Amino acid sequence: MTSPSPGRLIGVGTGPGDPELLTVKAVRALENADVVAHFAKRGNNSNARRIVADLLPPDVAELALLYPVTTEIDKSEAAYRCAIDGFYEQAAASVAERLDAGQTVAVLSEGDPLFYGSYMHLHVRLAGRYRTDIIPGVTAMSGAWSQTGLPISQGDDVLTVLPGTMAEAELARRLSDTDAAVIMKVGRNLPKIRRALENTGRLGDAFYVERATMENGHAIRLADKDDDQAPYFSIVLIPGWRGRA
Amino acid sequence: MTSPSPGRLIGVGTGPGDPELLTVKAVRALENADVVAHFAKRGNNSNARRIVADLLPPDVAELALLYPVTTEIDKSEAAYRCAIDGFYEQAAASVAERLDAGQTVAVLSEGDPLFYGSYMHLHVRLAGRYRTDIIPGVTAMSGAWSQTGLPISQGDDVLTVLPGTMAEAELARRLSDTDAAVIMKVGRNLPKIRRALENTGRLGDAFYVERATMENGHAIRLADKDDDQAPYFSIVLIPGWRGRA
Repeated sequence: MTSPSPGRLIGVGTGPGDPELLTVKAVRALENADVVAHFAKRGNNSNARRIVADLLPPDVAELALLYPVTTEIDKSEAAYRCAIDGFYEQAAASVAERLDAGQTVAVLSEGDPLFYGSYMHLHVRLAGRYRTDIIPGVTAMSGAWSQTGLPISQGDDVLTVLPGTMAEAELARRLSDTDAAVIMKVGRNLPKIRRALENTGRLGDAFYVERATMENGHAIRLADKDDDQAPYFSIVLIPGWRGRA
Repeated sequence: MTSPSPGRLIGVGTGPGDPELLTVKAVRALENADVVAHFAKRGNNSNARRIVADLLPPDVAELALLYPVTTEIDKSEAAYRCAIDGFYEQAAASVAERLDAGQTVAVLSEGDPLFYGSYMHLHVRLAGRYRTDIIPGVTAMSGAWSQTGLPISQGDDVLTVLPGTMAEAELARRLSDTDAAVIMKVGRNLPKIRRALENTGRLGDAFYVERATMENGHAIRLADKDDDQAPYFSIVLIPGWRGRA
């Protein structure tokens, strides 16, 4: 008996939420995969899995990669780092097992796989060992500015993508040093983000976007939005294009 | 006789080059459009038009929006500004004429329509007057890092998108103040970009990507690339993700 030739790893961008925003290539990859893998928190459905729900062949094998429960450990602690590294190692081993059996494994990734995606943790562990392809996707930020109809950057604009987790002073410094900006991971950082925008005179230009391109998605001027609650994956957009005309 | 109800404007992202990287929604919009409009330089084919060539219905009407010949005028001159503004006004009027006749006009935009795209010049002139939809696309930069298999940004990384046209000192300052960076509009700015990367100690991490996801596309380490020639739309990528593991 000979072992099968190794399978193929595919990082599949599922786009920002609307299933019609998958690429033709991504749809085909899902139709032809032996295994569809996705990251999720235990007890939660994977967002990426929800986006492609109607596109998966009924008999496809699925591999759910379930994050350990980590909310009770602070992210800066070594214990968190250790738990999450162990999880990624284990996830990569599960995927490798299917690849060693000769299967094609499509790993779902919301938005674009190599742009802040969980898939990257598998990629760095497996891409050197197996045939690997990346199918890029429409990012959540593209979904956000498109749904809002907001031209984000033009010509020689500098665009900066910032995590909302950043300290207020650092956020303000960077907001005053860019033409256009996208702030991700908004959630409970919203009051801080609002102050940083106010202090740099840019609050009036900012838009708040929630669940872009999904059925319940919406966008409003940040100045008109309360600080009450915002999902973690909501986005704030500050358009550039100063010489607009 | 009554006038027809006004038509619909659609900004259609064609993605970075591979026709399979159009979204399902973009393909459908092209199939159903009355008119497909695209920007091009006189005498050149439109890149976006080339990407969708095999997807257009054989009998669809096309509207080519031809940039005036402007290479003999410096971009900083008022005469250039005036010629280009006049062109965008005229282009918007041509599209408006079709919309007033009740037609659906799909405007092709390489990559993503609202991210450094020519479509934006029509959008700001027409979106207030006509029903308008944007179909986001995979950006050229997503195509570039996906083809290269290069995880660009993760976790709390700051990502900065920079025009290669920027002055060398300013480019260096910004490169030393970001985790990840994408430099667009490389072309003849390549030697300057290389110096800025060298002076900030980041040349070793940088990749040069040309015509990503197209048949003749390729990527190499910038350190291994000569300064001989680079197309205007080539891209330089500097990955972030310092705590990579």
